[in-house]
Order: sequence, then structure tokens, then C-alpha cells
Amino acid sequence: MRKSKPVVKLKKSNRSKSKLGKAPGAITYIGNRKKQVTTISKISYDEKDYVLENISIDEIESALKNNQTSFVDVVGLTDETTIAQIGAKLNLNNLLLEDLVDTLQRPKIDEYEDYIFSVFKMLYINENAELVIEHVALTLFKDTVVVFQETDDDVFGEVIKRIENKFGRIRSRGADYLFFALLDAIVDNYFIVLDDIKNKLEILEDEVYNNPQKESARKIQYLKKEILRIRKWIFPVKELVNRLLNTEHELISKETKLFLQDTFDHCLEINEDIVLYREMSTSLMEMYMTNMSNKMNEVMKVLTVIASIFIPLTFIAGIYGMNFDNMPELHTANGYYYLWGVFILIFLGLLIYFKKKDWL
Amino acid sequence: MRKSKPVVKLKKSNRSKSKLGKAPGAITYIGNRKKQVTTISKISYDEKDYVLENISIDEIESALKNNQTSFVDVVGLTDETTIAQIGAKLNLNNLLLEDLVDTLQRPKIDEYEDYIFSVFKMLYINENAELVIEHVALTLFKDTVVVFQETDDDVFGEVIKRIENKFGRIRSRGADYLFFALLDAIVDNYFIVLDDIKNKLEILEDEVYNNPQKESARKIQYLKKEILRIRKWIFPVKELVNRLLNTEHELISKETKLFLQDTFDHCLEINEDIVLYREMSTSLMEMYMTNMSNKMNEVMKVLTVIASIFIPLTFIAGIYGMNFDNMPELHTANGYYYLWGVFILIFLGLLIYFKKKDWL
Amino acid sequence: MRKSKPVVKLKKSNRSKSKLGKAPGAITYIGNRKKQVTTISKISYDEKDYVLENISIDEIESALKNNQTSFVDVVGLTDETTIAQIGAKLNLNNLLLEDLVDTLQRPKIDEYEDYIFSVFKMLYINENAELVIEHVALTLFKDTVVVFQETDDDVFGEVIKRIENKFGRIRSRGADYLFFALLDAIVDNYFIVLDDIKNKLEILEDEVYNNPQKESARKIQYLKKEILRIRKWIFPVKELVNRLLNTEHELISKETKLFLQDTFDHCLEINEDIVLYREMSTSLMEMYMTNMSNKMNEVMKVLTVIASIFIPLTFIAGIYGMNFDNMPELHTANGYYYLWGVFILIFLGLLIYFKKKDWL
Amino acid sequence: MRKSKPVVKLKKSNRSKSKLGKAPGAITYIGNRKKQVTTISKISYDEKDYVLENISIDEIESALKNNQTSFVDVVGLTDETTIAQIGAKLNLNNLLLEDLVDTLQRPKIDEYEDYIFSVFKMLYINENAELVIEHVALTLFKDTVVVFQETDDDVFGEVIKRIENKFGRIRSRGADYLFFALLDAIVDNYFIVLDDIKNKLEILEDEVYNNPQKESARKIQYLKKEILRIRKWIFPVKELVNRLLNTEHELISKETKLFLQDTFDHCLEINEDIVLYREMSTSLMEMYMTNMSNKMNEVMKVLTVIASIFIPLTFIAGIYGMNFDNMPELHTANGYYYLWGVFILIFLGLLIYFKKKDWL
Amino acid sequence: MRKSKPVVKLKKSNRSKSKLGKAPGAITYIGNRKKQVTTISKISYDEKDYVLENISIDEIESALKNNQTSFVDVVGLTDETTIAQIGAKLNLNNLLLEDLVDTLQRPKIDEYEDYIFSVFKMLYINENAELVIEHVALTLFKDTVVVFQETDDDVFGEVIKRIENKFGRIRSRGADYLFFALLDAIVDNYFIVLDDIKNKLEILEDEVYNNPQKESARKIQYLKKEILRIRKWIFPVKELVNRLLNTEHELISKETKLFLQDTFDHCLEINEDIVLYREMSTSLMEMYMTNMSNKMNEVMKVLTVIASIFIPLTFIAGIYGMNFDNMPELHTANGYYYLWGVFILIFLGLLIYFKKKDWL
Ligand SMILES: [Mg+2]
Ligand SMILES: [Mg+2]
Ligand SMILES: [Mg+2]
Ligand SMILES: [Mg+2]
Ligand SMILES: [Mg+2]
Ligand SMILES: [Mg+2]
Ligand SMILES: [Mg+2]
Ligand SMILES: [Mg+2]
Ligand SMILES: [Mg+2]
Ligand SMILES: [Mg+2]
Ligand SMILES: [Mg+2]
Ligand SMILES: [Mg+2]
Ligand SMILES: [Mg+2]
Ligand SMILES: [Mg+2]
Ligand SMILES: [Mg+2]
Ligand SMILES: [Mg+2]
Ligand SMILES: [Mg+2]
Ligand SMILES: [Mg+2]
Ligand SMILES: [Mg+2]
Ligand SMILES: [Mg+2]
Ligand SMILES: [Mg+2]
Ligand SMILES: [Mg+2]
Ligand SMILES: [Mg+2]
Ligand SMILES: [Mg+2]
Ligand SMILES: [Mg+2]
Ligand SMILES: [Mg+2]
Ligand SMILES: [Mg+2]
Ligand SMILES: [Mg+2]
Ligand SMILES: [Mg+2]
Ligand SMILES: [Mg+2]
Ligand SMILES: [Mg+2]
Repeated sequence: MRKSKPVVKLKKSNRSKSKLGKAPGAITYIGNRKKQVTTISKISYDEKDYVLENISIDEIESALKNNQTSFVDVVGLTDETTIAQIGAKLNLNNLLLEDLVDTLQRPKIDEYEDYIFSVFKMLYINENAELVIEHVALTLFKDTVVVFQETDDDVFGEVIKRIENKFGRIRSRGADYLFFALLDAIVDNYFIVLDDIKNKLEILEDEVYNNPQKESARKIQYLKKEILRIRKWIFPVKELVNRLLNTEHELISKETKLFLQDTFDHCLEINEDIVLYREMSTSLMEMYMTNMSNKMNEVMKVLTVIASIFIPLTFIAGIYGMNFDNMPELHTANGYYYLWGVFILIFLGLLIYFKKKDWL
Repeated sequence: MRKSKPVVKLKKSNRSKSKLGKAPGAITYIGNRKKQVTTISKISYDEKDYVLENISIDEIESALKNNQTSFVDVVGLTDETTIAQIGAKLNLNNLLLEDLVDTLQRPKIDEYEDYIFSVFKMLYINENAELVIEHVALTLFKDTVVVFQETDDDVFGEVIKRIENKFGRIRSRGADYLFFALLDAIVDNYFIVLDDIKNKLEILEDEVYNNPQKESARKIQYLKKEILRIRKWIFPVKELVNRLLNTEHELISKETKLFLQDTFDHCLEINEDIVLYREMSTSLMEMYMTNMSNKMNEVMKVLTVIASIFIPLTFIAGIYGMNFDNMPELHTANGYYYLWGVFILIFLGLLIYFKKKDWL
Repeated sequence: MRKSKPVVKLKKSNRSKSKLGKAPGAITYIGNRKKQVTTISKISYDEKDYVLENISIDEIESALKNNQTSFVDVVGLTDETTIAQIGAKLNLNNLLLEDLVDTLQRPKIDEYEDYIFSVFKMLYINENAELVIEHVALTLFKDTVVVFQETDDDVFGEVIKRIENKFGRIRSRGADYLFFALLDAIVDNYFIVLDDIKNKLEILEDEVYNNPQKESARKIQYLKKEILRIRKWIFPVKELVNRLLNTEHELISKETKLFLQDTFDHCLEINEDIVLYREMSTSLMEMYMTNMSNKMNEVMKVLTVIASIFIPLTFIAGIYGMNFDNMPELHTANGYYYLWGVFILIFLGLLIYFKKKDWL
Repeated sequence: MRKSKPVVKLKKSNRSKSKLGKAPGAITYIGNRKKQVTTISKISYDEKDYVLENISIDEIESALKNNQTSFVDVVGLTDETTIAQIGAKLNLNNLLLEDLVDTLQRPKIDEYEDYIFSVFKMLYINENAELVIEHVALTLFKDTVVVFQETDDDVFGEVIKRIENKFGRIRSRGADYLFFALLDAIVDNYFIVLDDIKNKLEILEDEVYNNPQKESARKIQYLKKEILRIRKWIFPVKELVNRLLNTEHELISKETKLFLQDTFDHCLEINEDIVLYREMSTSLMEMYMTNMSNKMNEVMKVLTVIASIFIPLTFIAGIYGMNFDNMPELHTANGYYYLWGVFILIFLGLLIYFKKKDWL
Repeated sequence: MRKSKPVVKLKKSNRSKSKLGKAPGAITYIGNRKKQVTTISKISYDEKDYVLENISIDEIESALKNNQTSFVDVVGLTDETTIAQIGAKLNLNNLLLEDLVDTLQRPKIDEYEDYIFSVFKMLYINENAELVIEHVALTLFKDTVVVFQETDDDVFGEVIKRIENKFGRIRSRGADYLFFALLDAIVDNYFIVLDDIKNKLEILEDEVYNNPQKESARKIQYLKKEILRIRKWIFPVKELVNRLLNTEHELISKETKLFLQDTFDHCLEINEDIVLYREMSTSLMEMYMTNMSNKMNEVMKVLTVIASIFIPLTFIAGIYGMNFDNMPELHTANGYYYLWGVFILIFLGLLIYFKKKDWL
């Protein structure tokens, strides 16, 4: 089983301040990546051919006007100038470029006349078994899908393999199917992340039921917070896919909508699962509290049983430790033995009493 | 009364990973059944005739083109190749075949031009009194209903008996009525499962009210989780039946919709009951906590009463156990007896005090 | 004030199993009444005449074709054959007959071309001050309302009195007004039942605030459960009346809708009250927990004060009870008296300390 | 600051029973007022003239047919005969008269062809600083507003002053503006009542944070209940005003709707505030519980520290109080003094230990 | 990191009473600012020119009729007469003027034929690091935006800088773009305020997890209340922006709606965040309670361990402190040493027992 490592923590990004007062459409990178060079690669394919190449900014335009279907992959969002240039070549609205370089942007889809622009979060587990949350923008043009992403890593590997494979269905379909395939890959990975959450929940459940620790509460709360955080990025996707299903935009064919319906099904399920996991984490916390309560009860019972038995006995011993001149019992031959009898009777009597109360 | 056994636990299925990156429509069995041979049986009937026979894949096509109504029952979903062949004969969309062999697929209905495809979960109690959750797909064609299911066991026995019976209404109606009858049988069994939940709730309620155990909390939480799990499979059905009620698909006649309305009534009630049982399990947990609290109170009262009475008395005895040369009380004739009087007075006084406070 | 007795408990009915696999429309009595003979009475009236008579099954048909308005009252639902015969005479759909003899059926209204069929629960307090939940079906025909109910007792007594009274408005109006009047009587009785709940809530509130008992928690939970149970039968009625208000069925006149609006007002209020009472029962439970907590605090304070004062004192007495050869204090003339001074100082000091902490 | 007195408690009214089985439209006073004489006053005004006079029942009709705008104020709802006569003169539907004398009637608006009938609750603080909840019905006719209310006191004083003032806008506008002005006065007073609630919340908050008492919980619960009770009367008003805003009834002019929009704004705010205050009272209860918990912790720490220090010391003293013949320590010269050293060391050691644990 | 200071507390404003009974449209300042002089400044600009000047009331009218775009900024709302005069010059409805000087007015947008009037709250952190909540009204005319605000400080500084800059896009667009830019600046500042809340939450989280104090609960409750208060002003904005997006008012161009969509995105995110922060504060309180419970457990364990070990030992010592004549053990040579063995055995035995129970 994959060992679940903590989420890669991002340093605090200060979107609010860096955007404050800027004109809308100002292209300001918001996020925690170090300055990096932006690279552009392109895959062009049709039923016959398949070409993968790195391209320059100036070659982008020609990629759009091509008889083949193209998948343009722009990696690295920190260099705002380059992004602006690419945006200009693609004729993208500045408002969209702004969202594109804002890694805290909520998932969204905007339909323009010539293209459909969308922003999502890729959630995936990288080779170090860390959860990565990566900002990604998919734009669907007539024959091209342009992807903007933060790093080389992504969830599109399998899609690309299917393109490479000459006989895959994807080779014979247009850009809207490619757009769907990429979106589908993103959504598929949400399942992986949710499985991870479920896994952690089950491990914690085991811990809470069988061996609750002081730390368990903290772990539950931490998991709850992780669920809330993931929810923020995943929840809106359902509504967005639904909008695509019902759009009348001509770039999305009726056939592709059939496939999008499948993605919508998955979104439905994902959202139900997130709600479910949240309820389960709440139940778990409740169970933890109950266990704590039960433990406390046990502690108090031990104290009560021991104190209630020995405090009265000690009192009796105390009586016969008094120094009164005139205490006849002290001078009988067997008083001490009789008293032992009394001690034992009281001891057993209380023991039986507590046994009956089920405190032992 | 049926002894309620725990749900048959499925080994973890790893849908997320096995599907990751696959093209949509890839037919991959997802579930925990062992590899099994797929069998196909067919019942053909009209008002006059009734034939039950096992058929081969190649005979499926002819089953569709038949003047009689046919009920084709495909058992065993693990053999993907066979399922793909059957799907091809039925002309089913690959996306549907994918859902069909995905035993974790959420309940759904998709309407295509020539058929209506649906996926549900059968929940039923098998002969070993275990709850089984089985994946089932119903597809309505013009004259035929094709059922795909995981095992021989199912909830359709009574429907088949009604078909066998020459004078049953079902014999004189078409495939859409058969489709309804099968769906109705599935929904009817949800009631059985919910009755089981209710039963467990009542047994637990008894336990919590009359003899709460440390284990009770765990049982309540377990039941709550079972309710959540069942809810996932049952809840969506209401919306789906509603969609059937309002569909304009020509395969479903107005008369059958009258019957579907009845099923919809049942779905309404089932969903209300699930919500209700959930609320009741929450109340039960609350009651358990209250009982624990009351028990703790009782424990503390016993400790407080005994300690509060004997600790002061012990102190007094301690005083007269001191060894001061000059302690006049020790040398009086009746000091010891007077002190016994003091002991008894204090003892009774505190006893009355605690009685008044209602701690005894 | 009416003494509130517990609800008449029904033995468990086993609907789920008795219906399992039956064809829809199978007329199976589901409930706990003993086998009883079904009786039919009829009241026919117009502005001039009023006739009350018992009728046989065969006379039902003629009741429908009558220039007068008729109120046909069928009592006793256990005899399925008779019900089926009556249903046939009335030309009622078998699906409705099924619901009619299912005393666990959710409230519902179905509109057919010639009649409007409805099922409700009558909730009323009988002469033994017990809450009765009785299944009732009202069917509105052109000139007739047919009522099916389980027992002789019902909530329609006052409606019948108004019919008997020659000058009542009801005499000059048609069957739809009668239908409304009966429904209105059912809803009016919900108020009585809710008043009973409110009453119990207030009594419990008194108990919890002024003299909380271990039993109080159980009573609150019991009441909460009763509210949930009643809610199940009452809540859906609002939506049903609303549907009647907006129906275009010709059997319900515009004038009668004016009256139904009044009933709808009442349903609104009833549903708000149920929600309110539920919130109040939750608050009450919370208050109970707080009181328990406060009581525990008090117990612990007493223990702490007494133990904290006498345990140190006992230690000091213990010191001077030691048998060392060389303990100079023991041999002073006034050591014992000085020690008493120390005892008293410590005692008073701690007393003041605890007083200041407000623990006394 | 106004001292907040408790709400004027109404004796229990027994609406449910007094209405049971009555025909709809039966005019039965439901409430707790003593029998009182009904009085009628009328203000007639236009831009030039202003007349205030008491009128008899027979003069009502002429008030309706008048070139001026009239404000007819009927005070006293207990005399059902008189109300019925007035209702007849105004040609009001009996169903409305029924609601008019039912002081437990939920707020409502019914539109008829010639008039708009509405029922609200006036909530106001009277001169004795008590909260009064008074039933009021406003009916808008073409040129007249008829108000039915329970007592002389009301919230309309300022509106009447504005009418008296010759240059007020109200003088130049019709009856619909008067209707709005009265409704607006009712809603404005809800703010006063909510301010009172807010005030009480803040006082309680102070108490809970700085000096929580056993009584505080009860006060919070009481306030919560008061909020729930007020909510019942205020919440529905928003929806009603919205309905007026969208009505096509010709009695309400487009200009007056502009003003009603302002009232609607207020209703929005009022409803948000009620929800907010409820959340705040829940938070307050939570805070109270936390404080109780903290107090308990403190109590237990004191007990634990004192007992944990002196119980071991007492044991040691007990050892040297034993009477064994052979206990060498007892016969050393400085044993007693060494033991004191041990006592002090243990005492200080434990003190430091508890200090470190932050229990002191 | 900015040090988070408490919100600038407003003295209680008594809107309810000061408005009570006033005619709607009465211009009454409601708020806590001291009487101040109202000043008016105007910025007029087009692609070529830019003029900033202070103007008098009489110059307002001409500002509206100008070929340039104008931004009129009215500062100071306490002087009702002046506001009324300005309102008259702008031809604003009195109802709007009333809302304009009511600093407790809920955010709202009203569309009139010639202008769009809106009221918001500016939330911003001033130079003293205090949160300020300031009332602001924006009115969009054909070529002019008029802003009414309480103080000189505001969130529009950056917008003005962009106007000053000759090459900014804002210079070439009309008043509706200016209106958007101002609204956008207001919404952008909500992010800053929410970041502050988030910051406080994280600091508190640290405190609760690592070093919970008695004060922590109070801080959490305080923060929760602050969130509720901010929510009141921010939540409605989303709905209002949505209304602008869908308005058909000709003053808002299609191009500006594109920008408003961006603002709407931000509102969506803001509202989600507020909900999230509220859930997190609730979780935090829960965690605090759990920590308190754990601490209590620890305290009780210490008490139980120490008391349970030494109370029985003390009893044994007490036995041999008794003064019976006949106690053979006392006279053996090694009885005392054997007893020490017993003491040590019991001590170690209990120590091991408690260690096993994990109480040490
Ligand atoms: Mg901006
Ligand atoms: Mg953005
Ligand atoms: Mg990447
Ligand atoms: Mg890549
Ligand atoms: Mg997928
Ligand atoms: Mg699928
Ligand atoms: Mg896939
Ligand atoms: Mg699937
Ligand atoms: Mg099967
Ligand atoms: Mg089978
Ligand atoms: Mg059924
Ligand atoms: Mg039915
Ligand atoms: Mg319960
Ligand atoms: Mg059935
Ligand atoms: Mg049924
Ligand atoms: Mg009956
Ligand atoms: Mg009867
Ligand atoms: Mg009624
Ligand atoms: Mg009414
Ligand atoms: Mg009635
Ligand atoms: Mg009424
Ligand atoms: Mg009055
Ligand atoms: Mg008056
Ligand atoms: Mg107002
Ligand atoms: Mg206003
Ligand atoms: Mg006003
Ligand atoms: Mg206002
Ligand atoms: Mg300002
Ligand atoms: Mg300024
Ligand atoms: Mg912005
Ligand atoms: Mg944006």
C-alpha cells in the first residue's frame, strides 16, 4: 500500500495584496513556484500521422491553423511576459490570462466565440507519494487544445499514450474529444486522491476504535481540514461539466457530449463521496470523544472502588490507634483478630457491592 | 426473527487505479468476484406461450427480433471479452458496457434512441441471512429486457413466477412492463433491507436504554456507517425513477408510467426512511453519551459520599492517636465513648445531608 | 387537562415481506387489525333531503348515479375480497386498491379521469385519551365521496352533524365541498395532536429545569421519536393540498379551492410547528446535559472541599502520632493546644479560600 | 437603556379544540382577551381636509364610497357578532373573518377582486416596557384601509401624525400608500423587538464570559425559545411582501410598489438577523458548556494536587506511627528531624512537578 | 506580518428608534460619525484630458452633462441637508437618499430609468491596521459615477491612479467601466479582510493544538462572531453582482459585463471562503473541547494512581498503629522489615498494573 505522505505544503501566496487595485486583466503570477522558463511542446495528429515537437511562441499561430488536431502544452506559468505573448498569439482575452496565472483561481469555464477557456486544479500523487495540487488551464479551439500548466508532471500521460497508439479512437476524433479526454483524466485522478482520503479515514478509524491516542483527535481534525481544502477545488467541477453538457457552443459536438455525460457521472459520484467522507470524519471525532469519556469512566471507577473500600477501613484502624486510657476492646484477648474479621467482611461486602454495580 | 448477520464484506476493489488513464469505454471489470463463466438464459413469452432456455451469444440477436416479449438474463460480469461480444450483438454503446462491468458505478439511466440503459444495485438478504449488494444492469429494448448481473442469486424470482403463471397480467403486457416489474422488485427489496436496519436500531435502542455497554457506541457507529453506505446506492434511484416518469421516450408507454408512479411512491418513502433512520442513529448516540454521563455522575457520587464522611472521621481519630504528653481528653473515663457519639453524630449528619441532596 | 397516554402501539406489521414479489395492484391488507367484517353506510343529501342508510356492495353503483350528493363510508379494510369487490363497483384502479389496504402507505393523491383518489392518516385522540393513527382513503367522484377507513371511530363526526343540520352551507354544495370538509377535519385534528406534543414538551421542560431525573433524558428521546413518527404522516399533506389547489381537474371547483386555501394555510402552520417542536426537543436535551454537567460540578466541589481540608489536617495529626523517641513537641505542656490552633487556622484558611473561589 | 421585561404571557388559548369540526368560515374568537366592546373610528382625508370621528357600524358602508381616502380602525375582536356585522357591511368573505378573529392565525395575504386582505402580528414594546404581540388585520379597499386590531395600543401613532400634518406626502396619495405606511410601521417595530433580543444576547454574553452562573444556561435557553417564537410571526412576512411586490392586483399602484420594495429590503434584513441571533444563542450555549468544563477542570486540579501531595505523606507518617517493637529508626536521635526533611523534600518535589504541569 | 488589531468598534447606533414611524424617504443619518462637512470632488477624463477639482453643489448638475466621463466623490454623510440638496440636483429618489445615509443599510442595487443606484460596505484595513467597515453608495449615470462615502479613506486609490495614467484602459472606456472598477476594488478588499480572518484562524489553531489556554475558547468564539458579522455585509454582494450581469439596463454595456463576470467569480470564491472559515472555527472549538477533555483525563489519572497506591498502604500502616494488647506481629523480630517488603510489593504491583493500563 502506498504510504500516505502529507500534502506538499505551499508557502503562503499573497494573492489578495498582489492583486489589490490592479486593473482587471493585469497578468500577475500568483503562486509559490520559483521563476522558471516557459516551454511549449506540440503534438499534431490525425488518423495517419503523429508528430511531437517543441515549438517556439511564433509557431503557435500556425498550430491553430492546421488540418490536424493539435495538443499544445505550455509548461511554466511564472514568466508573465511570455504568457502574455502566448496569450496574444492565441488571441485570448486578458481576463483569462489573468486567471491562467492565478494558481488560486477557482475552477471555471468561460465560453467565447472562438474558444472555450477553462481552469481546473489537477490533483495527483507524484512519484514521491506526495499529493500535488497543480493549476491547469485547458482551452479548446477549433482544432487545437492548448494546455497551460505549472510543471512538467501532469495527469495526461495515459492520454498521450492513447494518441501515440495509431489505432486508438482518439486519433480519429477532433479537438473536442481531446479536450474531453484531458478533462476526464483530471477527474479520474480525483478518484485516486479520494481513495487516499478514504484510506486514511479507515486507518484512523482502526486507531480510534482499537487504540485511541491523544494524537488521534488531531489527526482527525487534520484530515477533516484536508477534505475541506480538496472540496474547494473539486466541488465546482460538477457544475462546470454540467454547463458543458448543456452548452450550445458549436465547438463541442453532440458525440463528445455523450462522453462528457460519463465524466459528469463521475463528478456526481465524487461530490457524493466528499460529502460522505466529511460525515465520516465527523462521526469519527464523535467516536473519539465517546472513547475518551469511557476511559474517564474507567479511571474514576478504579479510584472510587479503591478509595471507597480503604478509606472506611483506615478510619476503623485509626480508632484503635487512639490513645484513650479507657478503651476496653484493646485489652480483650482476641479483639485484634475479631477486627481482622470486620476488615475482611467490610472489604468483601464492598467488593460484592461494586461487582454488582458492574464497576469491576 | 431473522438473525442479522453482518454485510458480506467485499475485498477492496481498486477502481481508481485500474481505470486511470484508460480511454472511456474501455471495458474493464471492476469488482471482487472471482473469474467466472458468463451464462445467458432467455424467457420468451406472450399470452399463449412461455419458453425458458439457455442461449449462446449468437442467439441474442434473434431474441431481439421476436414477436414475443423476451427476458434475457446474463449472469457473470467478470469475463470482459464475453461481455464485449454480447454488447456488440446488442449494439450497446461502449460507455455503457464500461459502466456495466464497473460494480462501483453509481445508479444511472441513459436513454438512447433504440434502448434505455440503467444500472442499479440489488440489495437483498441471501439464504445465509447475509446482506448482498449486487451490481445489476437493466436494458429495455423494444420487445426485450436484457439483465446483466453478477451472480445467479437475484430478486427477480417472484417476477419470473408471475410470468410462468399463464393468467398473470404480465403475460399480456410488453417489455416496458417487464422492465418496470424488475425495477419494482429491486425497490421492494430495499424495504427489506431497511426493515433490517430498523430492526437493528430497535435492538440497539433497547441495549442503550436498558443496559448500555462500552461496545454499544461502536455498534451505533457501525450501523450509522452501514446506513450511509446503503444510502449511496438507494438514494439516487428516486431521481432516476422520476426521470422515467417524465421521459418522452417511446419505449415506455403511458400505462406503464402509471405503474412506475407506484414505484416512485415507494422510492419517496424509502428515502424518507433512510433520512429518518439516520436521525434516529444520531439520537441514539446522543442517548448513549447521556447514559455514560449519568453513570459517571453516579460513580462520583459514591466516591464523594464515602470520602466526605470518612475522611473527617479519620482526622478526628488521628487526633486522639497523637502522642502528646498533655492531652486531657485521653485520660477521662468516658472520653472514648463520647467520641463514638461524636463519630455517630457526624456520620448521621452527613448521611442526612447527602440524602437531602439526593445523592444517595 | 387531558392526561396524555402513550400512543396505541401497533404490533409490527411486516409489509416488506408480505408484498415482496407480488404483482403491483395485488390487494393485500397490511396492518395489525384483526379480521373484521366490512360495513358500508351511505348519507345522501341535497338542500331538501337527508337520508342515512346502510347499503350492500351492490347498491354502491347506484349511489354514484344519483342526483344527490352522497357520502359513502366503508369501514374495515382487512377483508381483501370485499374491498376488491367494492373497488370493482367503483371502477377503481387496482394500484389504488393496493394502497388503500396498505395501512403503511405514505399520504398521496392520484388524479384519474373520473375521480381523485387520496390516502391520508387520521390522527386523533380517542375516548380513552389514546392517540390513534388510522389509515383512511378519500375518493372524490362527480357527486360522491367514498371514504375507506379501518374502524368506526373517526374525525368526521362534526362534518356529519353539519350535514344533518338542514341549514348548513354544506347541504347546498357539491361533493367537492364534502371532500374538502372531510380533509379539513383530518387536518384540524393534527392540531389537537400537536397540542398534545406541545403539552408534553412543556411538562418535560418543567421537569428538566426544576427537577431533572435520570428518566428525563429517556422521556425527551421518546418524545423526539414520537415527533419524528408523526412528522412522517403529516408532512407530506401540505404538498398534496398544494397540488389540489393547482389542479386543473374539473371535479374541484374554483369555489372549493378557496376553502382548500384555508386548509393549506393550516398545513403550512402545522409543518412549521412540527419543525419547531423538534428544535425545542433538541434544545431540551441540550439543557438536560447542561444540568447533568452542573450537578457533576457540584458533586466534585463537595468532594474537593472536604478532601482538601481534611487530608492535610490528617497528615499533621499523623505526624504527632509517630513514635519517635525524640519528638520534643510532644513533651511541651501546651503543644497539643497549639496544634489545635494550627488545625483551626488551616481549616478556616481553606474555608475562606474555597468561599472566595465560589465553591461553597 | 430600557430595562427588558419579560414578554406578556398569554394564557393558553385552545384554538384546536374550539375550532374542531366547525365549518370553515365559522367566526369564533380565539385568544385570551376579555370580552370587550368593539369600537370603530374613521379618519378621512385628502389634500385639503382631515376628519377624525367615531362611527357606527352602519356608517361603514358610506366610508367606502367616499371621494376621500379613509382609514377605518376597528378595535376589539372578541365580540364575534359585531365583527360579523362589520364583515357583512364590508362584504368580506367569511373565511377571512374567521382568520381575523383567530389571534393564532399565521400571517397571510389573500387577494380578492375588490380588496386585499392581510393578517399580521404587531410586535411592540408598550409603555410598561413589556413586549406585546397583537393580532392585526389590514384590508385594502379602493379608497379605504380597514384595520382590525385587539387593543387601543398600536404601532400606527406616527403614521396618523403624518396624516394630520397637512403637508405630509401621505395626504396626497391614495389608500394603497396608506396600506403600505401601516405595514411599514409594523415592520419597523420588528427592528425594535430584534434590538431588544440583541441587547439581551449581549448582556448574557457578558455574563457567560465573565461570570457564568448556573442560571445562565436557563436564560440562554429561554432567549432561544423567545427567538423561535418571534420567528414564527415575523419570518412569513418577507414572502408576503414579496407577493405584494409582484401582484398584478390593480389596487396597488406601481408607485406604491417602489415603497414596498423598501419594506421588502427591511424584511430581508430582519430575517437575516433572526437567523443570526439564533446562531449566536447557540454559540453562547456552547461557550457556557466550555466554561463549565473549564471550571470542573480547575476543581479537579485542586483536589488532585492536594490529595496527591498529602496522601503519600500521611502514609509515611503512618509508618512511623506503627507499634512494632523493633523499628530502629524510631530510636535514633535525629530520625524525627530527618523525616521532616523527607516530608519537605517530597512536598516541594510534587509542588514543582504540578507547577510544571501547569496545574497550579 | 501585519499585526491584526481588533475591529474599530462603532458605538451603538440606534437606527430602529430614530427611524420608527418616520415617513419612508425621510433622510435621517444613521451611524456613529461625528457631524462633519460634506465635500465634493470631481475627476473628469477622456482619452486626452484629465481634470481633478473640488466642486460645489451647484456644479454637480453640469458634471452630469459633460462629454467626458466623470467620477464625482461625495465625502461625509452626516449633514442631511446637504445630502438632500445633492440628491435633488442628481434627481435621486428620496428612498435612495434614505438608504444612502443609513450606514446600517443592507447592500442593495436598485435600477431606475436614468441611473443604477447601489449601496455596499467597504471593508478595508486602514493605516493603523484596524479593520474599517464604511458605508458607500455608488450611482451610475450615463457618463458619470457618483460615490457617496463616510470618510476620506477608501479603497479607490488604485483606480484613481489608473485614471491618472494616460494610457490605462480605463481612460478609453465609459462610466459603466468606471462603475465596475470601483465595485471591483471593493470586492478585492474583501479578500484582504478574509485573509486576515484566515490568519487569525491559523494562529488560533496553533494555540489550540499546542498550548490551549482558558482564553482560547473565548478567542474562537470572538472570531466566529466576527465572521458572522462580516458575512452579513459580504454575502449579499454575490447576488447583486449576478443581477447586474443579467440586467437589461442600457447603462451597462455587454463589454463591461465581461468584466463583471470576473467580479462575480470573485464573489463566488469569497462566499465559499466565508462558509469554509465558519466551518473551520467550529472545528476548532470542537478540538478545544477535546483537548480540555484530554487534560481532565490526565488530571484524573494522576489522582487515581497516587490515591489508589497510597490509600491501601496507609490502611496497612494504620493496622499496625493500633494499640491492641495482643498483636503478635508487633513483637516479632523482623515484622517491621517484612512489612516493608509488603509495602514495596504492593507499591510495585499497582505501579505495574497502572503502567499496563497505560495510565502512566
Ligand atoms: Mg482588480
Ligand atoms: Mg482572478
Ligand atoms: Mg504539470
Ligand atoms: Mg507535461
Ligand atoms: Mg473518467
Ligand atoms: Mg461511465
Ligand atoms: Mg478515463
Ligand atoms: Mg464508470
Ligand atoms: Mg445475481
Ligand atoms: Mg438469476
Ligand atoms: Mg413496489
Ligand atoms: Mg402503491
Ligand atoms: Mg431515538
Ligand atoms: Mg411489488
Ligand atoms: Mg404501496
Ligand atoms: Mg375509523
Ligand atoms: Mg366512522
Ligand atoms: Mg381547518
Ligand atoms: Mg383560515
Ligand atoms: Mg374546520
Ligand atoms: Mg384559521
Ligand atoms: Mg392594538
Ligand atoms: Mg389603536
Ligand atoms: Mg420601514
Ligand atoms: Mg430603504
Ligand atoms: Mg418608516
Ligand atoms: Mg432603510
Ligand atoms: Mg471613505
Ligand atoms: Mg476618499
Ligand atoms: Mg477583482
Ligand atoms: Mg478572473
